[in-house]
This record gives sequence, C-alpha cells and structure tokens, in this order.
Amino acid sequence: MIVRNSYREDFPALRREIDGQRISYLDSAATTLKPDAVIRAITEYYETNGANIHRGKHRLSEEASDAYEASRVLIASHIGAAANEVVLTRNTSEALNLVAQGLELEPDAYIVGCMDAHHSQMLPWRRAGRLALTRVDADGRLDRDHFRELLRERPKVVALTHCSNVTGTVHPVAELIAEIRSATDAVIVLDAAQSLPHQRLNVHELDVDFVAFSMHKMLGPTGVGVLFGRSRLLSALRPLTVGGGMVDWVDLDGSVDRRTPYKFEAGTPAIASVIGSGAAIRYLEALDPAALHQHERDVARALVGGALTRPGVRLIGPPNLTDRIGLVSLRLEQGVPTGDVARMLSDSYGYMVRSGHMCSQPLVTGLAGGEILRVSAYLYNEVAEVEGFYEALDELLACIGPAAVVGARR
Amino acid sequence: MIVRNSYREDFPALRREIDGQRISYLDSAATTLKPDAVIRAITEYYETNGANIHRGKHRLSEEASDAYEASRVLIASHIGAAANEVVLTRNTSEALNLVAQGLELEPDAYIVGCMDAHHSQMLPWRRAGRLALTRVDADGRLDRDHFRELLRERPKVVALTHCSNVTGTVHPVAELIAEIRSATDAVIVLDAAQSLPHQRLNVHELDVDFVAFSMHKMLGPTGVGVLFGRSRLLSALRPLTVGGGMVDWVDLDGSVDRRTPYKFEAGTPAIASVIGSGAAIRYLEALDPAALHQHERDVARALVGGALTRPGVRLIGPPNLTDRIGLVSLRLEQGVPTGDVARMLSDSYGYMVRSGHMCSQPLVTGLAGGEILRVSAYLYNEVAEVEGFYEALDELLACIGPAAVVGARR
Repeated sequence: MIVRNSYREDFPALRREIDGQRISYLDSAATTLKPDAVIRAITEYYETNGANIHRGKHRLSEEASDAYEASRVLIASHIGAAANEVVLTRNTSEALNLVAQGLELEPDAYIVGCMDAHHSQMLPWRRAGRLALTRVDADGRLDRDHFRELLRERPKVVALTHCSNVTGTVHPVAELIAEIRSATDAVIVLDAAQSLPHQRLNVHELDVDFVAFSMHKMLGPTGVGVLFGRSRLLSALRPLTVGGGMVDWVDLDGSVDRRTPYKFEAGTPAIASVIGSGAAIRYLEALDPAALHQHERDVARALVGGALTRPGVRLIGPPNLTDRIGLVSLRLEQGVPTGDVARMLSDSYGYMVRSGHMCSQPLVTGLAGGEILRVSAYLYNEVAEVEGFYEALDELLACIGPAAVVGARR
Repeated sequence: MIVRNSYREDFPALRREIDGQRISYLDSAATTLKPDAVIRAITEYYETNGANIHRGKHRLSEEASDAYEASRVLIASHIGAAANEVVLTRNTSEALNLVAQGLELEPDAYIVGCMDAHHSQMLPWRRAGRLALTRVDADGRLDRDHFRELLRERPKVVALTHCSNVTGTVHPVAELIAEIRSATDAVIVLDAAQSLPHQRLNVHELDVDFVAFSMHKMLGPTGVGVLFGRSRLLSALRPLTVGGGMVDWVDLDGSVDRRTPYKFEAGTPAIASVIGSGAAIRYLEALDPAALHQHERDVARALVGGALTRPGVRLIGPPNLTDRIGLVSLRLEQGVPTGDVARMLSDSYGYMVRSGHMCSQPLVTGLAGGEILRVSAYLYNEVAEVEGFYEALDELLACIGPAAVVGARR
C-alpha cells in the first residue's frame, strides 16, 4: 500500500491505476511526472493564446513573448544567473552539443571528462576533441589523483558531471572546480541534469562557465533544456543553428546576429513548454527546502538499505547516504533477465523502474558488467513505496531468479 | 462582427475577448492556433502518463513510446513517407540546419536558393557553402530563366521554398524539380513550412530529397519540426547533435549510432508535443479537402481584393488567386508606422496581424522597401473577418495616415 504524502496529490498521473493497482513511479531520473500547475500553464497558453513570440506587435504575440521571457527569468534566477545568460534548448544533450561545437576547438584539443558521464556529456566532447576520462573506483567515486594528473596536461575544457545518473553520487564540484581553476585556464562545463532537480545551485558562486540541465527532470514539460553560459563566453560561442529570430539584420551580403541568448534560438521555440517550465520553477520554489531535503534523505536510506540487505542484489555505487540523490542502481544475479524483471515489476506490481545501461554504457559496463535496474525517486515518492518495491523484487526473484530456475530443473 | 464557422468552434483561444471584443486571429503564417483535440492529447499524456520513451521497459514508458512513434507514423503517412524517413526536430529551422550541416559539403560548395527564402532556409545554406539566390520579379515570382542559368553551374544542393511566407505564392515545385533533375544531380531540399498547412504533398511523387516543415504551423504544438529525408541520404547525413538515445553501443573507444531516424534524435525529445502533433494530423485529415480548398480560395479572394482596391495600400506579391495561400502582405504608404498600425489593429479592433520583415528581409527589402503588414488566414477564419480587417485598417489609416497628418497641420 502506498502512503499518500502531500506532494503526491499534485500529480494527476499518480491517480491512475493499472489493472486496479496504484502506480508507483520510480523512474524520475529519466523524467519526472508533472504537477497540475505545470499542465495548467501549458493548457492555459494554448486555450487563451497560442500565438508566436518576439516578432509580433499584436496583443497575443506580446502576451506570449512576455510569458516566454518571464519563464527564462524564473529559470535564470533559480540558478543565480541573469536572463541573458540562459539559452533555452530542447534538452541537456542539445545544450552540451551547443557548447562542444560552439567553442570551435581544434580537432585535437585536449578535453578532460569523467567516466561516469552520461552519453550526452561524453559523446559531444569525444566529437569535439581528444577526450580523456577520469577513472572511477569500484563504487563509482572519482579518482581524484587521476583527475589531477589529467589536469596537468592543461585541457582546453573540463566536462564535469554533477551527479551520476547511474550511482546517484553527487560529486564535490566546488572542490573540483577550485582544482581546475588553480591548475588550468580550461572552460568548465557542468552537466547538472541529475543534480539540480534535487538541490539548489548558484552558477556564480560555483564559478562555473557553462551549466546544462533539462526542465523535464524537474517537473517541467519535455522539450526544454537549459544552457547557462557566462556572458563573455556565450557571446563568443558559435550558434548550432541559424535562421529566423536569431538575426537582427539580413541582406544579400550577410547578416548580423542578435545578442545572446537570442542568437542561439533560431526558429519558433517550444513556447508552451517554456511557459510550463516557469510554472515548474514556481512550484519547486514554493516547497519547504528543509522538508524536501529530509524527505530525500529518508527515501535514499530506504533505497540503499534495501539494496545492501539483499543477497540477490548488488548495489552499484557507494553505500553512503550523504552526497547522493534518492537513486540506486542494482545489479541482479547473473542469469536474471533485468529487462523482464522491470516489466514484471511494472505489470504485476505497479512499480515503474528503469533497466538497461542508463545512457552511461562505459560506466555501467565497468561497474556492473551488464544491464542494471535503476530505482530513482522524487518528491512524490514515499519510503513505503521503496519498501514495497523491494518486497515485490524479492517475490519476483524468488520466482525467476537462478535459484528458482535451478529449483524448477530438479 | 465575426461570422462563426464550424471550424472556429474547435479553437478555444477564439472564445476569448479582449476588452469585450472578439479576437480575429490573422497571423497563422507565424503559427496557427490549436484545436481542443490537440490540447487534449497533450494534457492526457501529462495527466495519465508523463514517462520518458524508448529506454524503458515499464508500462508507462512503453505506452509513451507507442504514442510517440504513432505520431511519427501519422506525420510520415500524411506526406507519403515511411516512418524511418521522418526525423522529429524542434522546428523547420533545425531541420534545415541538420541537412545543411549534415551533408558535410566543401566550404565552397555551390548551392542554389531562392530570393524569397525564409531566413531559416537562407542562412543555413549561406553558412554551408557558396549560395546563389534565384531572382524574383517585382511581384515575387521566380525568374525561371535565372533559375536555369544558375542550374547550369551544377549546384551540389538546390534549396527550394514551396510557398513564400511574404507573398503567399506557391511555386511550381514539381516543374522546378524536373528541371533540376534533368540539369544536375543536386540534392533537392524543400522548405514546405508555409505550403503543407494548406495543401497535401507526397514526397515521393514530388521526387524530392529532403522536406522540412513545422507542426505548429498546422495546428500542432510548438516545439516540433519535421525533416523528411530519402532513406539513402538520411543514412549518410551526419547528426547535428550526439548523446543519449541515438547510439546503440558506447565503449571507451567509440560508439555505434542507431539507425535513422533515431540517430538524429539525441536526448529526451518533446514527447508531449509530438503526441499533440499526431492529434493535429488526425484533425486535419478528418476535414473535407474540397470544402477546405473552397474556403481558402474565398478567403484569399477577399484578402487580395481588399488590397487591390485600396489607395493607401500596396499588395506585395502577385495579384493572382490561384497558386497562393490565404495570405497577403501589404506595404502601407510612406510615413505610416507599420508596427503601430499592427498594434492598434490588435488593441482597438481585435485583429491580430504581423508587421516587420517576416524573417525574409532580403525579399521584403527588395519588393517593399521597408516593413510590411502581413495578414495570414487559416481554416478558422471567415471572409467576414477579412472584410472587417480592411474596414478597421481604413479607419486607422484615415486617422494616422499621411493624409490625416497633413490634414492635422492645416
């Protein structure tokens, strides 16, 4: 049975039942569910407006432009940035590609990354230059000595992952950034897609050059990513795409780009989803941070504790409860089909968890040796749900685990 | 007074009043309003699901993936394409940038375009190679002799505009494509953003290589563009962005891209908006094509007729009623502030029309010599609205036109 908490009621998808069973959504690291307030903001734009932004002088267009830009301001101030330092993209991937390509590095430019990077942070840099990955230990902790060693080669860029989407580990980025600054003049690019939904971040206090994240992982609509960039660096960045809305003037000989952030936003943007993103920020900022933090810690304790006390399950990532989000990755015993387990957890028990390589294949291959099951919680989840998940997993593994298979053969 | 038609009632934004006045939305070339069915599809996804696609084995993720891919199938079959020939982008601009950069042309590659291209079709090609623009006559008709002359230099790419967003002229693309095919082996890229909302198109009958358009200009949500590409060409195209979801395998040495179209869709896409796009296609396909065509012609007649019979107004574009969409661009008399007129039409009369250079600055500068007023209709508009618009414009110009200014001085 799922105990209701006060947040849960704001999420209409959780009112749904599958075959008479309540849903327990434990896949928030892939994307979060949306509260009524966000859905309403989208619907309201479409039902009362629907016009395009920026290029119109009529009332609907001006209202739409104001709402769109108000969302940018909300997002920017949420991370301590100015509005003109915030570019709205489709997702974190696009934001990171924009930086990686926009810096126009030499093909053999030396770049330092981390082994626990999501593919979205790894592949763009691998394409942009010569990428070296900082090693991690058997629990997925960064090898700080190796990191320092890589920095000595004076990289042009250091691409950091704030929180691993596989281990749930939050890296000490302030310390890492201080080390980078003292050793090199590298551009520092932070993937905050998994961290920002769980903890506040101030881009200027952190002294970081670029930060990328996605609104859909923090209660916002799909289709909106964010790239923060320091003004000076953003101004020098080459746009990934060119077209309407990003130029001040075009004639037969050339064109003049608009200022940042507009020069990066060619064509009609995801207006409704950006407006919905503003509503997501408003929702998040209205919550009590201390209660949220306590809630996350309780859920994390249940997640980690459940993994550590089960013989058929190996925790991928460190067992600590600090410096982690409410996420665990589990490696099931050899021979247990992880994808099938995920499907049965969903269809027979109502638990939605993810299976596979989590778009971090080098890390998952290295730490787990194969597919994993990832259980990721957010503010609408309860400790009782986590306990229920483990009970369901126990039942399932008793039926389909290797022991059961061996038993069946007898 | 606005006469209601049967389509109008499906569009909730048109139920709105501004200062007690009904809205007349005549800015559909910028973006169309959305019918209830589209808004409902988006809301339903968020209220009953909200999960991410493709990478999950749980029920919600599978349902979301199915709905997302069903939209792709609907969009593809709407243009006579196979689903794997359709890449979902953010907008037309991104689709055209993807082709222009993805072809990896030599920096001095010769490319033929059209003077009436939208910036989204002009700027990516200018960046990709050496772009020559086909001249237009004083009415914005393509200079076919010049076009043939440019083709003789054997371009690598010909970038066509199906319908100008300034003049409303629908070009004879089938004829143009036949000429290109007989003269060159150029890749043919068609911007159909302004044509497809008004007329069906079959990509294979048209024998075109790439076609780009935006769902938000045909009743769909913002944030979804479409790139059709011939399989062979799409397979050879370099992705604009790399990251999660577009690779089959990643290890420490490299990665293997997924097949088309997935290799072009890095990161979490605009899931809800893509699902809404499917609803838009369903809505459009359920309408009677003959009635729609007649309606468009009636509205176009009123738009062109109104422009031709007014002394203070010059029609930008050809006066013909065939081969045009329900759109006119107007140049007001010297000295009349076009942006202010657009604002007053909106705030005092409820008519939403666009003003400026329409993201086609070289053409607008050439044909009009300055800012224009663009009036663009869609299926929810009525002939009576167009007549009302012209009456309002007459009143306004009598107050603020040059004659009025001269009168005031006496």
